Amino acid sequence: MKLAVYVTLKPGVLDPQGAAISQALAGLGFDGVQGVRQGKLIELDLAEEDRDRAVETATRMCEKLLANTVIETYRIEPAEPA
Amino acid sequence: MKLAVYVTLKPGVLDPQGAAISQALAGLGFDGVQGVRQGKLIELDLAEEDRDRAVETATRMCEKLLANTVIETYRIEPAEPA
Repeated sequence: MKLAVYVTLKPGVLDPQGAAISQALAGLGFDGVQGVRQGKLIELDLAEEDRDRAVETATRMCEKLLANTVIETYRIEPAEPA
Repeated sequence: MKLAVYVTLKPGVLDPQGAAISQALAGLGFDGVQGVRQGKLIELDLAEEDRDRAVETATRMCEKLLANTVIETYRIEPAEPA
């Protein structure tokens, strides 16, 4: 089954990519941008079809590889291909 | 208001980051990984409080800066901080 994993920086962690986007948007004439944070979206297609077990596997993947849990948080959702 | 912008590679576009994650997961002993695609999650905080106008502004941001529409697609959703 397909899972979407969203990995975002924890609040308070400096986000230079987000700051760069914010500045670039201002440079393009977009005003009213109060904040930009950039994170990652990882789409997993797993052979496991049981939803709970797939989420559990994805959680272990996040803890071991996909997210740096010191500075990042993650959220796992079934399906939702973008 | 806060918006989440999901930017993903179009189907068929080579995704070396996704392939690297897939290989790394296999190396860690995770089997049954049929596919991994990596995209971006951009959280915008706009001064605009009208939902339709905020989405319209975010759409222009995507077309101009946030997504490379030749190889990427984007999806905009209100709120949902990860």
